[in-house]
Amino acid sequence: MNNLFSYFTPKDKKFFPLFEKSGANLVAMSQSLVELVNSNPQDTEQRERIYKKIADLEHIGDDITHQIYIELGKNFITPFDREDIHALGSALDEVADYIHGSASRMNLYNVIEMTEPIKKLAGFILQATSEVAKALVELKNYKSIRIIADACIRINNIENQADYIFDKAVGELFTYEQDAKTIIKYKEVLSAMETATDMCEDVANVLESILIKNA
Amino acid sequence: MNNLFSYFTPKDKKFFPLFEKSGANLVAMSQSLVELVNSNPQDTEQRERIYKKIADLEHIGDDITHQIYIELGKNFITPFDREDIHALGSALDEVADYIHGSASRMNLYNVIEMTEPIKKLAGFILQATSEVAKALVELKNYKSIRIIADACIRINNIENQADYIFDKAVGELFTYEQDAKTIIKYKEVLSAMETATDMCEDVANVLESILIKNA
Amino acid sequence: MNNLFSYFTPKDKKFFPLFEKSGANLVAMSQSLVELVNSNPQDTEQRERIYKKIADLEHIGDDITHQIYIELGKNFITPFDREDIHALGSALDEVADYIHGSASRMNLYNVIEMTEPIKKLAGFILQATSEVAKALVELKNYKSIRIIADACIRINNIENQADYIFDKAVGELFTYEQDAKTIIKYKEVLSAMETATDMCEDVANVLESILIKNA
Repeated sequence: MNNLFSYFTPKDKKFFPLFEKSGANLVAMSQSLVELVNSNPQDTEQRERIYKKIADLEHIGDDITHQIYIELGKNFITPFDREDIHALGSALDEVADYIHGSASRMNLYNVIEMTEPIKKLAGFILQATSEVAKALVELKNYKSIRIIADACIRINNIENQADYIFDKAVGELFTYEQDAKTIIKYKEVLSAMETATDMCEDVANVLESILIKNA
Repeated sequence: MNNLFSYFTPKDKKFFPLFEKSGANLVAMSQSLVELVNSNPQDTEQRERIYKKIADLEHIGDDITHQIYIELGKNFITPFDREDIHALGSALDEVADYIHGSASRMNLYNVIEMTEPIKKLAGFILQATSEVAKALVELKNYKSIRIIADACIRINNIENQADYIFDKAVGELFTYEQDAKTIIKYKEVLSAMETATDMCEDVANVLESILIKNA
Repeated sequence: MNNLFSYFTPKDKKFFPLFEKSGANLVAMSQSLVELVNSNPQDTEQRERIYKKIADLEHIGDDITHQIYIELGKNFITPFDREDIHALGSALDEVADYIHGSASRMNLYNVIEMTEPIKKLAGFILQATSEVAKALVELKNYKSIRIIADACIRINNIENQADYIFDKAVGELFTYEQDAKTIIKYKEVLSAMETATDMCEDVANVLESILIKNA
């Protein structure tokens, strides 16, 4: 397995920096989400500020994705298969969409009280995007397959835990919450958050597939 | 980028006509959906007729997909990668499934009043499938990469707008609707409609990936 | 089409046995699910035992998936494309996740009464995973493309039926069930079950794509 990634062109100066930026942007979004769910419910001004920040970061993410696609159109030599660069770009975009979607639902559904499972899932999203960012930084180093593969395994683990927290939280809503509207509302927010970790798993799947193809 | 699509065989007489048919069928389904959500709630006969028409069109779509797969089995030379033809066929099938699923939920859930967001989403579905159809017509022209790529960008835009309308509509249901059953019912219909635009985005992703691979 | 699969190495002793094991494990999970939904609601001990068994089988499934990935890392020669082995492994893992998720929701949401649609969907899951298992057994035989393709068609049919049962069951919940909490609860369980058949369709898609690529 010594020649893994020998196929890569580690000198690439176009795509690797964009993927790194994209990873860092996802971490920034997740940090804002964690800040949001731990903010004072009475401080609506701060919440409005964080909602806006997450929306702004999502637009930055859209721009990075767009730049990746533009570079694909301009460059005939790519560090790995063109369709995998496209798949990775799309998968990262989906993660951003669901983090933004989670915050957006909290806002539009007027969710004031942030429950324990919401806080836990926000923590998992931050953990998962941090692993994604770590893996993306390592993409350019042809010796770091192990590091990327390990990050992918951890992302899968985090997704499993998020899945369990989601199902348990919904079960508890059914047991302790009497108001059906409240149940639906929280279920939808929790579901968007859980899907954000699913999308991190999709990124891990694309990364694993790239490692495997270039082995 | 002049030689983009040079890899294609523009003379193909099997797959391009089937993809065109599939696109036209999706537009016909969307037109019926728009007609449905704008029809008179009292005219149950007309609604029944449109439900039936959408179901019939979905069967026609299934037949087209099936023909694409049969041609794949019979032809050794294909205008682009065999697996991409399969992926494109499946993605188009999913769009048809969700348009039909949207109408089917309206029918089975006994949704009488068609709200503004439902009408808006039906309009977005028609816009998105029209872009899909346009892109599919252009597939055979090796000079029209720009047209296809632009259609893909518009599909992504439409999906983003549909997403926002969906989240906003559900938020409004929580605010203005007291009956939890009604909330769930409408949420499920809106969700199927929003997923139909997601599936158009999947088609755009496959198309972009085909463009990129053959660049 | 006589040389279909000629590209394959039918002598493979690593991957084919693991895929067979994975298929058999999915069938075992589905059989437990069928047993669960037909068990006596008063016999909580038996239900606990089946919940535990399904969770145990899911862990076994995780181990098989992990072994497939490890073999991918160790073997330079694979019976078909490395990325397709990865895709097939992931798709099978998803099926296990949703079967387990269905049972897990029944447990966590405290669903006591197993309704007719729940029983029907459990039956469809067993049918679909049986077809998946059959197709996986045949993967090693380079003459059995027809058998695999037919299994894929049947899986698609089963998924369509499951989809219809799901939409109809939710429609009936809206008509006959007054309690919104009960509606949501059952809808979530039915939805996880329906998604399990969707995931079988994803496996069929990967299999079809492998057949097509190696034609």
